[in-house]
Amino acid sequence: MPDDKKTHTPKDSHYARLRRAHRERHGGHPAKPPRKAVPPGADPERGLVRLYGIHTVQAAIANARRRIHRMLVTRNALERLGISDIATLPFPAELAEPRAIEKVTGSEAVHQGVLLEAEPLKPKTLSELAETELVIVLDQVTDPHNVGAIMRSAVAFGAGALITTERHSPHESGVLAKSASGALEHIDLIEVRNLAAALGELHSAGFQTVGLDSDGPAELEKSIRGERIALVLGAEGKGLRQKTRETVTTLARLDMPGAIRSLNVSNAAAVALYAARRFLANSE
Amino acid sequence: MPDDKKTHTPKDSHYARLRRAHRERHGGHPAKPPRKAVPPGADPERGLVRLYGIHTVQAAIANARRRIHRMLVTRNALERLGISDIATLPFPAELAEPRAIEKVTGSEAVHQGVLLEAEPLKPKTLSELAETELVIVLDQVTDPHNVGAIMRSAVAFGAGALITTERHSPHESGVLAKSASGALEHIDLIEVRNLAAALGELHSAGFQTVGLDSDGPAELEKSIRGERIALVLGAEGKGLRQKTRETVTTLARLDMPGAIRSLNVSNAAAVALYAARRFLANSE
Repeated sequence: MPDDKKTHTPKDSHYARLRRAHRERHGGHPAKPPRKAVPPGADPERGLVRLYGIHTVQAAIANARRRIHRMLVTRNALERLGISDIATLPFPAELAEPRAIEKVTGSEAVHQGVLLEAEPLKPKTLSELAETELVIVLDQVTDPHNVGAIMRSAVAFGAGALITTERHSPHESGVLAKSASGALEHIDLIEVRNLAAALGELHSAGFQTVGLDSDGPAELEKSIRGERIALVLGAEGKGLRQKTRETVTTLARLDMPGAIRSLNVSNAAAVALYAARRFLANSE
Repeated sequence: MPDDKKTHTPKDSHYARLRRAHRERHGGHPAKPPRKAVPPGADPERGLVRLYGIHTVQAAIANARRRIHRMLVTRNALERLGISDIATLPFPAELAEPRAIEKVTGSEAVHQGVLLEAEPLKPKTLSELAETELVIVLDQVTDPHNVGAIMRSAVAFGAGALITTERHSPHESGVLAKSASGALEHIDLIEVRNLAAALGELHSAGFQTVGLDSDGPAELEKSIRGERIALVLGAEGKGLRQKTRETVTTLARLDMPGAIRSLNVSNAAAVALYAARRFLANSE
């Protein structure tokens, strides 16, 4: 039976207690000895991005559109990637120690033993929007962790594109790619000059544009009605810009009965994508 | 009309172009001059946690259970907090410059001009579980950003408690509190010794325990049936432990039609909470 006394079982070693005490002092970090932070190395060659982490790199290698310039990889990561012979890779690749990779990425990056330097994928234009019934539009959301997580949810729920403005675009980066966990390679990133004009184009293409807004007049599920849906989300705190609010087909809220009435933006996106996907599946 | 040419409008200044070029080189960071990172200062007095950010501090001050030892606040943040006279606060508080606060929190922390040092809230035990029809259980999820975002969604969707194991508890920290955006003060954190035993207690209390698992036999919406629901989530990559999988009432999956079949754990929690809340609302 669980209880609230922090007594220790006989299995607890002296070191386990020390580790726990350290962890508690440092507020929830895993029980590792403190390590000196390593800052990232010099920037990559102009125009290249660094991609790291097993899922991220695996997806990049599998993407025919991705131009890879260089790979650093540990023996262990090579095995996890399922690559039996490094010489068969169609780009320069070399075996490295974890510390050599960390010197490039910095110790903040969870590189999992593999690093690519690659060209970013070319953002597309709205005229290239494929046949898709679900897209997500970001109104000045730029935090790379959030945008990465949103890409991942967008791909999971079958959204065909992520639309952002050129001037407040998240841009491809290692942090974004890692948070996207491979999703970067599976979704079209579309950059537009003017968001209101882009919403107009989406309307012409048969999309209902639904702006998420905590003061929206109706719940999201009761607001969705189109055969093609574009979900529009603003940055946390700021929300949708006035012009965006005026331009969308519908403003809608997520119903939250609790003491807090807003979600982290990637959480809000996940819920909205889920609700929209269910609506589309049931209306087919 | 949006197009893909990165030409510049006449409004673009020389500096705007420089900032954009810098931003693009550095992969998506906002257009600020690069600043030297400031490491966090010495740990707080043993047993205290640091809470920062407007929402987080506002909620902590409003929480009668929270014992605050000290506050550092800028004039601007004081105004945002709606405090007209710093002397009326029931704990020691002093005006400070933003840089003085950054010296304590480190520059990674988005402190928004306010910092508290306070006692952590005492975790509760399962026997103290209030009358609630929805709880969330974490099986070794410890990343403070994710746990904070999960707390925020849990409060938003009216979950009454967050249940974790003592040994892999996220513990209260500044990062967790900031990610929770005030939710830390609104939800009971319950720590248990043994998760399987705790699930048994939840069953006795009339809860259906639903483990989220990408290989679950049925979709979440088709799996929920109780009047009291406990959603059980595992850490990313690892998922639920074997013993947890064997103990829950039901294993269920979120239906994802896309090329990626897993979500960030806080995104998965948000979707599951949303679905459970809708089920409970419709069955009342």
